[in-house]
Amino acid sequence: MFNKRMQKLGEERSVIRELFEYGNRRKSEIGAENVFDFSLGNPNIPAPGRVGEEIVRLVRETPAEALHGYTSAAGSAEAREAVAAHIRNAFHAPADASLIYMTCGAAASLTVTLAALCEDGDEVVVLAPFFPEYLVFIESAGGKPVVVQTDAAFRPDLAALERAITPRTKAVIVNSPNNPSGAVYTEGEMRALASLLVRKSEKARSPIVLISDEPYRELCYGAAPPYLPKLYKNTVVCYSWSKSLSLAGERIGYIAVSPGCENAQTLFNAVCGAGRSLGFVCAPALFQRVVAACIGTTSDLEKYRENRDMLYNALTSYGYECAPPEGAFYLFVKAPNGDAREFSELAKRHEVLIVPSESFGVKGYVRISYCVSRDVITRSLPAFRTLRSLFS
Amino acid sequence: MFNKRMQKLGEERSVIRELFEYGNRRKSEIGAENVFDFSLGNPNIPAPGRVGEEIVRLVRETPAEALHGYTSAAGSAEAREAVAAHIRNAFHAPADASLIYMTCGAAASLTVTLAALCEDGDEVVVLAPFFPEYLVFIESAGGKPVVVQTDAAFRPDLAALERAITPRTKAVIVNSPNNPSGAVYTEGEMRALASLLVRKSEKARSPIVLISDEPYRELCYGAAPPYLPKLYKNTVVCYSWSKSLSLAGERIGYIAVSPGCENAQTLFNAVCGAGRSLGFVCAPALFQRVVAACIGTTSDLEKYRENRDMLYNALTSYGYECAPPEGAFYLFVKAPNGDAREFSELAKRHEVLIVPSESFGVKGYVRISYCVSRDVITRSLPAFRTLRSLFS
Repeated sequence: MFNKRMQKLGEERSVIRELFEYGNRRKSEIGAENVFDFSLGNPNIPAPGRVGEEIVRLVRETPAEALHGYTSAAGSAEAREAVAAHIRNAFHAPADASLIYMTCGAAASLTVTLAALCEDGDEVVVLAPFFPEYLVFIESAGGKPVVVQTDAAFRPDLAALERAITPRTKAVIVNSPNNPSGAVYTEGEMRALASLLVRKSEKARSPIVLISDEPYRELCYGAAPPYLPKLYKNTVVCYSWSKSLSLAGERIGYIAVSPGCENAQTLFNAVCGAGRSLGFVCAPALFQRVVAACIGTTSDLEKYRENRDMLYNALTSYGYECAPPEGAFYLFVKAPNGDAREFSELAKRHEVLIVPSESFGVKGYVRISYCVSRDVITRSLPAFRTLRSLFS
Repeated sequence: MFNKRMQKLGEERSVIRELFEYGNRRKSEIGAENVFDFSLGNPNIPAPGRVGEEIVRLVRETPAEALHGYTSAAGSAEAREAVAAHIRNAFHAPADASLIYMTCGAAASLTVTLAALCEDGDEVVVLAPFFPEYLVFIESAGGKPVVVQTDAAFRPDLAALERAITPRTKAVIVNSPNNPSGAVYTEGEMRALASLLVRKSEKARSPIVLISDEPYRELCYGAAPPYLPKLYKNTVVCYSWSKSLSLAGERIGYIAVSPGCENAQTLFNAVCGAGRSLGFVCAPALFQRVVAACIGTTSDLEKYRENRDMLYNALTSYGYECAPPEGAFYLFVKAPNGDAREFSELAKRHEVLIVPSESFGVKGYVRISYCVSRDVITRSLPAFRTLRSLFS
């Protein structure tokens, strides 16, 4: 009776969302303090105080009809200029406000960019492990996802990537810092990727676009990731303030078409058309002003580093295997029994909610989101120890 | 190189948005006070004070990580329950929080609903004149728009509608109060439509869904429009607070699947899947709380009635022909030269920005948005008088 794909997407939900909803039900049954919910990437560190101050100031000082009215579809001139100036200052890279499109968050940045790029059947390469909704978003845009495995340490495998690229490859999505592995790709790795894309673009129908999905840009515990438009000209950056300013629910982000892109203005027009086609109208107006005022500041992200260290040290001491995470707020841990789904189900019986890795495109791992309170981590450790001991 | 449809949509922009952007440029050239901009439906009446108070209270009293975090994809339990309770109280109609889906505004309500309903090639009937983006949204969902003209007074023409419905008709969109005509359909007219849809549904592949697009519900200067789910069971209501609370830029609305719908839960699942597929994640979290707290209150909408009366009385006294508008904040006026596009261009030379009717699906009219300051109306009247006198 209804659209079958949508029905299926609605009934399955994402594995992550499913677990999150299960957690909410379980918390109401046995008390929130008794459920160790590591399912969702929902920041537990509050937005910086300046965000709240800015909201109050805007409400006090701006006429409501101006504050809450439509902005231009691509965003207010002020917000777009603030983003472009930030890119120029922080990354010493060219940026043009006229090529910045403010979005309703990272998911919108991706669906709009993919819809702007893809014609039916175009191929979009993703590196596994990947954010599971990539597959949904690529298919929504009429594209065909092509999954390329990373190596055993979750580093890009250039040879595998080279084999996967065809003349129909429209785009490659790179997500660094990576959800779920925590890997941060080095400048060397990205230079090698750029060379490959330059070489392959010559044989492609049109230049291959690099989509840099960067919601975790600032969540980095070592070297910062390189700014990809400086390494490869046909790059589109998809950003969101969900994590850096802990505004995940407010749906605010941007698409930056690099001025170096071939036919940048035409690509930007397609982005505007895609936003219109999908029904986005404009990014939330109040938060366009808030992020413009707060750009460059972040939540107290050091807390995530402390969580990471505590959980990583504890888990590895129990015998779990895990690549040291360099960014984002996830540990990607080998399921000690070898079966991620089974281990995740088993963990549920200990009230530990962790996401099996199949939907991220790899087998045998679980994702543990450590954007939770210190207390949850501390009190969950006995359960993690017990779970590990079952397979010693 | 890029998606051609998106490129085209981005380059053309909507006629309304185009005129709005022209107005902004023109205002910066000759001063805002010298441009009479009747192009956009951007509320000029501020949100009620309670909205600002509620925002400040929420920022002060709610931990930021809870206030700005993700909600469930369909919305917070509190917001969904507030909407369902409001429907029960205001319209004495059944409503179930589990069938309410909070959205990023009216456009999102429509793109998500259409994507949930349509398989490729399904037909969606719209009554002309209509909000131009309907055609874009239907095509985005893979549907085929079928345009049915209303009668000379912009009332639904049941005979024409009957001829237009085929076994492939998936949905009919009704927008009352109507943008752009200002018509408000009566209970009698909607009962007749319901009977037709019941009869036609028997021969259709699946029951025809009535999509009630209601962003102007509260902007009514006579009888309130009937609540359509009470007249036709397979109804989905698409709502937004853009106009009633003057929050157009904040992107907050809802989809209400009527509990009377056949396979209501399956339809709701498809709505959730469509929201996921298009990249909506959740409606803006702060404003979910704001509208839940302010539901049932409105901006001072009487100001629109005063604008309507002043502009309607003046224009008809100059000899313009216009159906008396019963709702929304638009006058739909016959172009005195018979050519809407030409008349709109001519008006631009007098710094009057009004939208030609072709993109609304009818010829020979212009839309005048009267959600502007009293002052703009007063000072524009000589230009309207001059423009009319050119064709006497």
